[in-house]
Amino acid sequence: MSTLSPRPLTKASPVAERYRHVRATSRELGAPLSDADATVQSMPDASPAKWHLAHTTWFFETMVLKPNLPGYEVFDESFNYLFNSYYETIGERQPRPRRGMITRPHLDTVFDYRDHVDAAVETLLERGASPEVAELVELGCHHEQQHQELLLTDILHLFAQSPLKPAYRDPQPLGVGREPGEARFVSFDGGIVEIGHDGQGFAFDSEGPRHRALLDPYRLADRLVTNGEFIAFIEDGGYRNPLLWLSAGWADILANKWEQPFYWFQRDGEWWTMTLRGAQPVDRNAPVTHLSYFEADAFATWAGKRLPSEFEWENAAAGLSMEGNFAGSGRLRPKPAGPARDGALRQMFGDVWEWTRSPFSPYPRFKPVEGAVGEYNGKFMCGQFVLRGGSCVTPEGHIRATYRNFFPPDARWQFSGLRLAEDA
Amino acid sequence: MSTLSPRPLTKASPVAERYRHVRATSRELGAPLSDADATVQSMPDASPAKWHLAHTTWFFETMVLKPNLPGYEVFDESFNYLFNSYYETIGERQPRPRRGMITRPHLDTVFDYRDHVDAAVETLLERGASPEVAELVELGCHHEQQHQELLLTDILHLFAQSPLKPAYRDPQPLGVGREPGEARFVSFDGGIVEIGHDGQGFAFDSEGPRHRALLDPYRLADRLVTNGEFIAFIEDGGYRNPLLWLSAGWADILANKWEQPFYWFQRDGEWWTMTLRGAQPVDRNAPVTHLSYFEADAFATWAGKRLPSEFEWENAAAGLSMEGNFAGSGRLRPKPAGPARDGALRQMFGDVWEWTRSPFSPYPRFKPVEGAVGEYNGKFMCGQFVLRGGSCVTPEGHIRATYRNFFPPDARWQFSGLRLAEDA
Amino acid sequence: MSTLSPRPLTKASPVAERYRHVRATSRELGAPLSDADATVQSMPDASPAKWHLAHTTWFFETMVLKPNLPGYEVFDESFNYLFNSYYETIGERQPRPRRGMITRPHLDTVFDYRDHVDAAVETLLERGASPEVAELVELGCHHEQQHQELLLTDILHLFAQSPLKPAYRDPQPLGVGREPGEARFVSFDGGIVEIGHDGQGFAFDSEGPRHRALLDPYRLADRLVTNGEFIAFIEDGGYRNPLLWLSAGWADILANKWEQPFYWFQRDGEWWTMTLRGAQPVDRNAPVTHLSYFEADAFATWAGKRLPSEFEWENAAAGLSMEGNFAGSGRLRPKPAGPARDGALRQMFGDVWEWTRSPFSPYPRFKPVEGAVGEYNGKFMCGQFVLRGGSCVTPEGHIRATYRNFFPPDARWQFSGLRLAEDA
Amino acid sequence: MSTLSPRPLTKASPVAERYRHVRATSRELGAPLSDADATVQSMPDASPAKWHLAHTTWFFETMVLKPNLPGYEVFDESFNYLFNSYYETIGERQPRPRRGMITRPHLDTVFDYRDHVDAAVETLLERGASPEVAELVELGCHHEQQHQELLLTDILHLFAQSPLKPAYRDPQPLGVGREPGEARFVSFDGGIVEIGHDGQGFAFDSEGPRHRALLDPYRLADRLVTNGEFIAFIEDGGYRNPLLWLSAGWADILANKWEQPFYWFQRDGEWWTMTLRGAQPVDRNAPVTHLSYFEADAFATWAGKRLPSEFEWENAAAGLSMEGNFAGSGRLRPKPAGPARDGALRQMFGDVWEWTRSPFSPYPRFKPVEGAVGEYNGKFMCGQFVLRGGSCVTPEGHIRATYRNFFPPDARWQFSGLRLAEDA
Repeated sequence: MSTLSPRPLTKASPVAERYRHVRATSRELGAPLSDADATVQSMPDASPAKWHLAHTTWFFETMVLKPNLPGYEVFDESFNYLFNSYYETIGERQPRPRRGMITRPHLDTVFDYRDHVDAAVETLLERGASPEVAELVELGCHHEQQHQELLLTDILHLFAQSPLKPAYRDPQPLGVGREPGEARFVSFDGGIVEIGHDGQGFAFDSEGPRHRALLDPYRLADRLVTNGEFIAFIEDGGYRNPLLWLSAGWADILANKWEQPFYWFQRDGEWWTMTLRGAQPVDRNAPVTHLSYFEADAFATWAGKRLPSEFEWENAAAGLSMEGNFAGSGRLRPKPAGPARDGALRQMFGDVWEWTRSPFSPYPRFKPVEGAVGEYNGKFMCGQFVLRGGSCVTPEGHIRATYRNFFPPDARWQFSGLRLAEDA
Repeated sequence: MSTLSPRPLTKASPVAERYRHVRATSRELGAPLSDADATVQSMPDASPAKWHLAHTTWFFETMVLKPNLPGYEVFDESFNYLFNSYYETIGERQPRPRRGMITRPHLDTVFDYRDHVDAAVETLLERGASPEVAELVELGCHHEQQHQELLLTDILHLFAQSPLKPAYRDPQPLGVGREPGEARFVSFDGGIVEIGHDGQGFAFDSEGPRHRALLDPYRLADRLVTNGEFIAFIEDGGYRNPLLWLSAGWADILANKWEQPFYWFQRDGEWWTMTLRGAQPVDRNAPVTHLSYFEADAFATWAGKRLPSEFEWENAAAGLSMEGNFAGSGRLRPKPAGPARDGALRQMFGDVWEWTRSPFSPYPRFKPVEGAVGEYNGKFMCGQFVLRGGSCVTPEGHIRATYRNFFPPDARWQFSGLRLAEDA
Repeated sequence: MSTLSPRPLTKASPVAERYRHVRATSRELGAPLSDADATVQSMPDASPAKWHLAHTTWFFETMVLKPNLPGYEVFDESFNYLFNSYYETIGERQPRPRRGMITRPHLDTVFDYRDHVDAAVETLLERGASPEVAELVELGCHHEQQHQELLLTDILHLFAQSPLKPAYRDPQPLGVGREPGEARFVSFDGGIVEIGHDGQGFAFDSEGPRHRALLDPYRLADRLVTNGEFIAFIEDGGYRNPLLWLSAGWADILANKWEQPFYWFQRDGEWWTMTLRGAQPVDRNAPVTHLSYFEADAFATWAGKRLPSEFEWENAAAGLSMEGNFAGSGRLRPKPAGPARDGALRQMFGDVWEWTRSPFSPYPRFKPVEGAVGEYNGKFMCGQFVLRGGSCVTPEGHIRATYRNFFPPDARWQFSGLRLAEDA
Repeated sequence: MSTLSPRPLTKASPVAERYRHVRATSRELGAPLSDADATVQSMPDASPAKWHLAHTTWFFETMVLKPNLPGYEVFDESFNYLFNSYYETIGERQPRPRRGMITRPHLDTVFDYRDHVDAAVETLLERGASPEVAELVELGCHHEQQHQELLLTDILHLFAQSPLKPAYRDPQPLGVGREPGEARFVSFDGGIVEIGHDGQGFAFDSEGPRHRALLDPYRLADRLVTNGEFIAFIEDGGYRNPLLWLSAGWADILANKWEQPFYWFQRDGEWWTMTLRGAQPVDRNAPVTHLSYFEADAFATWAGKRLPSEFEWENAAAGLSMEGNFAGSGRLRPKPAGPARDGALRQMFGDVWEWTRSPFSPYPRFKPVEGAVGEYNGKFMCGQFVLRGGSCVTPEGHIRATYRNFFPPDARWQFSGLRLAEDA
């Protein structure tokens, strides 16, 4: 998942308040971590927590403060090299797979850096920021929320590498959820529908332009696929039947010996899984997560269904309340679905990102924004699939029905699961 | 590019005649090759010519003769292992990257195998084949035509590895073409259009079902991008500017040091290229080819345009005559465009496959056919982009306006180029 | 194994006769091969038969004819690039792992090349060659004999990759040998001994200078380790016990899942092995072969013994008759030991190369010869172990008691086995 | 470099004092490091400082306390998995390349672990340890000293990866040394000499048994090769001339684009190098270091000399005072040679490990010790070369004339350099 350029910020927004809230949240997320926890990079696709905390700060320093706050004093000139992610227009940077070599600065210094930048942003906002600046601050907040989610998924990955299986948060087991009952399928008419962000409030550039699309009638399951259902797939030999898999997925299975979702393992004949609360038994009633696209697609084929397209999903989600199991709840794990209600979709937001069958492609007339902030979702529009709806580690207030997350089809370390769909 | 399952064969078709024609063509394509030429595999994505000649024959033996010709005697039981491509339902097979280890049987034996199968197919057809069998034979013919094109692109790749740069065919230089003039853009209204094959005549399964799609107004260049235009991109530093490239493409450039189209090299300050006629000077007036998707996309960005979607291309191609520079001409290289005519698209068929911006995805309500022949375009619907229109090594009669070829974005050994598009 | 520079050729030698014999032998070795068999390269460490046949010819053309036969006309200028092995002083060459891309010239043309060079060498010798030239011809003959052995081991490797397991020669099974009885250990006093070639007759540069070495008393088994003994090692869990293995060998076992000697496989509960006569049952009485150094060393540790040093071996071999099971017998497989005789070593020459515990290092005062022919055993004196005694595919007359073959410790495709040793 | 099993501890030794000294030194070495510095693993061959500090402690806990101190309470059961290095007999362990994933325990906890074990060892020694236990403690001390050196070389490697080039110690530049003058060659007679440890005092198992060896007369340079001399090699194209290099070394140069010693870089036209004092200018008068075996060997060839054998070195070092520039000086960089004295060798101990031409092989009658401590130098006797004399980061009192260090020929991150030799 990457960043991002802004839609116009048209409605009055308490940007300073949002800024403080987001920045304080990041600090809280970093609190359980030691300097070492925050430094190590467990794989090239993951970044150290320290890097997330510093990079989001660098974004404000570089995009907001340097061009807009006269007299702003840069905290440390070397940070521009250390904490640039991939903005080619801004210059050279630490290669991504080498982010874990940055043992200095200390985590404490990164927090000092955050203080320094926060004070300057407050000054800027107090002086009365122009709409353009307010828009950039808002963009920076959304950008930081993306990194909050990644900080959590990356820490989970790191802790999963340790034989100690440390808990990021309270290692007490959560109660097992209620059996959610069979999924029911909700019907949608399709036809010509409006897709994409309408420009009211913030959105990333790839969510627009809003445009019309033509959909056939379709049906969506009213809840997410559960661990129990996925265990049935495993027990039916799902991981050993090539006919269920995309060719590239089958090659991954053979090469990597995948036989269960990421982070799962057997203990005394039971399925366990690594979580942000340490090693825990798999809850059969909760949504399955840490699936690659390949696994989600193979499961759907096995079940005689298919994955929804991102347009089907968005059309169904339009108008729904954005409630769900998000990071703020502190649960940090997906939760079994609540009781079914006729014709109502459950778990559309939060819990797990839902793989769609849609490759991440530009909408008609999409153009990246000019300048550094336009680097850009656009350059990732190749080899990725869209996920929708947010997860149990997505910050509240970050998600939208039009929000397009994306990952390569073999990515498993995000909280990614699925909802079944079929033609009507 | 892969295979394939049939649309119903509804119009009366001289299937025996088509069979003979296709089979004789393969034999001609193999004629310039020694046993060694036909055996070596130059990279895992390419197959030996011997393998193409035997695999297409194995297809008829396995799918047509064994189930339908009582008393048919298998030519050699071991060939089922050697020459199965990827049909999981049919059993184990020689691993793809090890196809070049098969020095036995000799190329002559493969031709004997072809004789044996051809005689049996003739017998079957003379006895009067059922519509189902006729359909399978037709499918086998189209399948073989796909492999004819691959045989040529794979031989070109092999010969390009040799320091001798041998010519597959007559090494005499071709005359340089006429300067084709600036491309003109032809406008299309879009709206709701019909896409996909209508079931009249043969098509592969992924070309259907025919369905409606919604298009914005758009414009297409009336000819392909030329070598001369691509040289301007190179000279403008196109290969050194990361802002022009998809992120995955830029990574490929850095890793592989791409600085020009595949097969190009400098000789005495001039651009030369390896071709099926040996090393030849680059013709600035001819269409550029052997581009990856990344290079096609970067060129379009540099030119201030974009690649067309596959629906835009198909909508523009619908109803055009399927004429062009195909394999049968014996030229085996792309040809400069003929004279422009107002509002008319040139070079839509033949010359080079045109990269579209469309990932290879299933059409609405697409379902793979049951059984082995349903293995299947569907399992390749991940990580590939669609190309349209055929090339100078596509057999005549193989292409259609609805035909969807597909390759990963880093593939360069096919005859792949581009046509520019823009929003109207 | 590599090449080589000459010792002075001091005794009168029928060099023309030797030349004819060696050259004719290569031709016979190539006879059972098709153009395709002779072209494919089955791994980077192996070379195509065509390459061996041409490279040895190129050696005579480049080292003997071009500098010494006025008016000699080069057969094909491009061959200098194609068939140079690694002589940096002579220029650029086809990269070793890409030797299999050379489908042209045809095998027939390579035989024409051999004719052309043979005729010129005959002319040169008839005119009366200087001692220096005679010495170079002799060197070329020994060089070609090395490649004769490699041609056979490389063809075996290639044919082992084919699911058809073709036989290079007569696929009839050989009779099973007699049980050779327990090995007996023969004692040697050690002390100050003379090691290395004394300059009488031909030797490679690395065999000298002759020098003194100090040996402790030691004992050598009177025969090679057999397949039956090695099966006992396997059945005792030898491949699963890390304490038996060198650290680097254990890493290889884990990475490559070695569980038996190279080319071995199970068929109906019995051990079989690929041979130059096709797939054959393992003969428990014959010497075990196709072992890496790691496997030889682990076996010796398991047996409570050790490998001999190369000096121990040479001291024991000095003065023995150079008889044994060589290539000329046409058996092309190791042979069970004949009857024991008190105090007499059996199987010292032929059958299998014997791994010694000696790294391939220069002898005191060793200096590579000047010029291209001095490229050179010396540059391989790193990361290799010495093997002694020749094998069942070594040409008669090629071996000596002072002969030092060498391979990296993970090499398994040569005919390599072991003889046990211990301190007295 | 690896470990180790003991020679009998025959002379009365103040083992408790040595223990305290060694343990306190490790603590001092860890003092400049943050938790993050001590956790990150910069390459598979290097280990985190935290790991070194804990592993050496685990060694005492496992080998000394658990079998010998009744009632000893293990500090943390999980540490047996985390901090075992490679002792197969002791059980499963964290894979070496994943040592950097261990962010927990905290560095402070590792120091608590050290306190816990130190207290228990003191108790054991106060109670009066048996000679066997005292021997194991002494072994543990030497083992820990080896890891002290590795801790420093591994931290240097880590800090070299950081764009900030942090200094482990005082970043002030050291004064440039005096020009040491031309090297003089000292002659040695050779003959039958005694090699290996005589059993008086501690030695690792691979240093024995003491035995006789036969040496030709030889000469050794009286000082180490300097940076200035190595710059002359670079400027003469040494890195571009394949004829100077071992074949495997030349392959490394091509693959890794080596053009200077490890850690060197150009700044404003001058050579700089990363050091434990941060980035520093290269001192032309100081010994060159961070060379692979390949570079040392190529330099010697270029200079018309050769590397000494380990026996030549040991014979020359026998009886010399073990004085030199060791870790205790706090310099942590090699130092220019002092004034020459006729016939006297300089810099034999300390400064840089001297590559010898000797592969690391067992001495005659060498047998690894039984049990876990016998895992063992022996299993590394393949693919490594011996280095002699210690370096500027070797602890005082750790080195001996018979000491055999060993590394693969491509290792560059140790303080490794060379002294020239020649035949007399």
